[in-house]
Amino acid sequence: MRGLWAASWRSLGRKTLHSSTSSSSPSSSSLSSNLKLLGPNLPDVWMVPGPSSSAFHSQSSAANGQTANVINGKSIARAIRAGIANEICRMKETIVKSPGLAIVLVGGRRNSRTFIHVKLKACEEVGITTHVEELPEECTEDEVLRVVSGLNNNPSVNGIIVQLPLPQLVDEERIINFVSPEKDVDGFHPLNMGNLAMKGREPLFIPCAPKSCIELLLRSGVEIMGKRAVVVGRSKIVGLPTSLLLHHHATVSTVHSFTKNPEQITREADIVIADVGIPNLIRGSWLKPGAVVVDMGTNQVQDPGIDQGSRIIGDVCYEEAIKVVSAITPVPGGVGPVTIAMLLSNTLDSAKRAFPFR
Amino acid sequence: MRGLWAASWRSLGRKTLHSSTSSSSPSSSSLSSNLKLLGPNLPDVWMVPGPSSSAFHSQSSAANGQTANVINGKSIARAIRAGIANEICRMKETIVKSPGLAIVLVGGRRNSRTFIHVKLKACEEVGITTHVEELPEECTEDEVLRVVSGLNNNPSVNGIIVQLPLPQLVDEERIINFVSPEKDVDGFHPLNMGNLAMKGREPLFIPCAPKSCIELLLRSGVEIMGKRAVVVGRSKIVGLPTSLLLHHHATVSTVHSFTKNPEQITREADIVIADVGIPNLIRGSWLKPGAVVVDMGTNQVQDPGIDQGSRIIGDVCYEEAIKVVSAITPVPGGVGPVTIAMLLSNTLDSAKRAFPFR
Repeated sequence: MRGLWAASWRSLGRKTLHSSTSSSSPSSSSLSSNLKLLGPNLPDVWMVPGPSSSAFHSQSSAANGQTANVINGKSIARAIRAGIANEICRMKETIVKSPGLAIVLVGGRRNSRTFIHVKLKACEEVGITTHVEELPEECTEDEVLRVVSGLNNNPSVNGIIVQLPLPQLVDEERIINFVSPEKDVDGFHPLNMGNLAMKGREPLFIPCAPKSCIELLLRSGVEIMGKRAVVVGRSKIVGLPTSLLLHHHATVSTVHSFTKNPEQITREADIVIADVGIPNLIRGSWLKPGAVVVDMGTNQVQDPGIDQGSRIIGDVCYEEAIKVVSAITPVPGGVGPVTIAMLLSNTLDSAKRAFPFR
Repeated sequence: MRGLWAASWRSLGRKTLHSSTSSSSPSSSSLSSNLKLLGPNLPDVWMVPGPSSSAFHSQSSAANGQTANVINGKSIARAIRAGIANEICRMKETIVKSPGLAIVLVGGRRNSRTFIHVKLKACEEVGITTHVEELPEECTEDEVLRVVSGLNNNPSVNGIIVQLPLPQLVDEERIINFVSPEKDVDGFHPLNMGNLAMKGREPLFIPCAPKSCIELLLRSGVEIMGKRAVVVGRSKIVGLPTSLLLHHHATVSTVHSFTKNPEQITREADIVIADVGIPNLIRGSWLKPGAVVVDMGTNQVQDPGIDQGSRIIGDVCYEEAIKVVSAITPVPGGVGPVTIAMLLSNTLDSAKRAFPFR
């Protein structure tokens, strides 16, 4: 039976990877398709471990003494947004329609208002029509459901965001389940999450931050296929779907607060994704030389030395990591801008399906 | 900010674990609730790695020279089935109703008939009413959908199984998506899979083989919390949902055919789950001394030395593994019988929700 193990997946895998990285350089304005993000859905054919299997340690030694590549999320996001703006121009010219995004805001949390402002501005710049539905903090769950129902049935709305967190008296699970899966541009509906998890299926939407993480890797020419990836954190909207996405190409370990010696596991990884919410948790000593780091943390820390009194930093100790890794996304200016671009991309995709427009 | 990392999750986790193992010994006829399988949904609170973090290496040294515990799936399944039969007796006495399971068989593949026969016999023994809908190999997709629709609307049917694989001309994804998530006792509907993946949510059904894997571990008193688990294989009906389930307690790595040096990763694991479909792929040298192995493979191999001419073996080389590990499930007689018991359990749960009956 051993003969079964030996197979040519290796060459097949490589070929697929090259085709995906070559067409997704930062200069390209076209978006990576979901298919590319989800992987080629190659059958699982096993081979006997051979002497060639330690090939990718060469990256580590090559990185010694090199300066890390800082992955420029702002510039990648700019290229993606330009592509989206062009597509929307073409849509307006051809069918005299543009994509529409609705945001539901319950209660007036200051952070939520800031996040919404950023999303609205980004939409406006590429030509997506926006609409905000505000409800008071003390509204009932049924009132929220009524608003979502109206948006589900409104043909000019292609994407619906329910800004989280919701007030305590409103059941988040019930509201998210109620958003039409066809307009779930956040990708948080369990139907989209299930289709993301299941090999060979394609969800209508991939959550924006995880999609951004893979886009950043692909557009920076980072090889994912066959690599060891560690995702630190398993939140249902960032860490978990990022694991599921990477899973299609890489050998993924998920590290969380129950993990003993997490630094031993991250030190074995070629790609480290951080989604913890603790500033500087991941130190330089947690990382393998030559690894690639995507820092999805956005933590506000006090800094009396600057005018605003505080600043945003990531989950990775950037100053230490930069001396060890081959590439890293900074915070701010890494995952954040590309995540917003992915929201625009999901909204455009939804509009194209709904109108329909190719 | 470092102070945030230190927290008391360790003692909290231990307490939860003890309560779950003590109530789920093989002698107990009550089923582990989904909540227990899914974990306590403790918040992710991080702590600084400390000297106590290597505590569970003691298991490895203790196992040296010991005989491995062979986990008896048949006896565990017997205990579970007895509990289910009692529940169904009580249901019949109280509300004069019993759970109903329908199996849809398209085409007459010999293997499928054998699998169905085993399921029907198990149902009969515990008092579940069964019903098989047979369709010819050359039927259309719409004909299958019509049959599933009838079962979705039939109040005497609490569980629907579409026996896989389906003929090539029938779209498996479309058929599975069409089964009512409330009757999806196989747990293959993407809505149930999404809710399984998302922390803090509870799916209506957990797929039977992954649920069986966790039941076997819990009922054998194997500690999962904080352990390193490796799932070899990522099929959408076994490997992937098993990873997602373990994920609630353990640090999980998923190894697949793109993984270089899979044996290095399995050697680090306290718990190894095999779902590959290749006889004897996982050798003794792939395993850490004292590890626990759950072998989900069922491979038919030729054996001219026995009357039938072939026998069933697992993905793990049992003869080698038994000398290294602290516990292992045999094939046959390990995961298989408990998987059938989990199907009965899912069907009973569904009937209890539908009637309703407590």
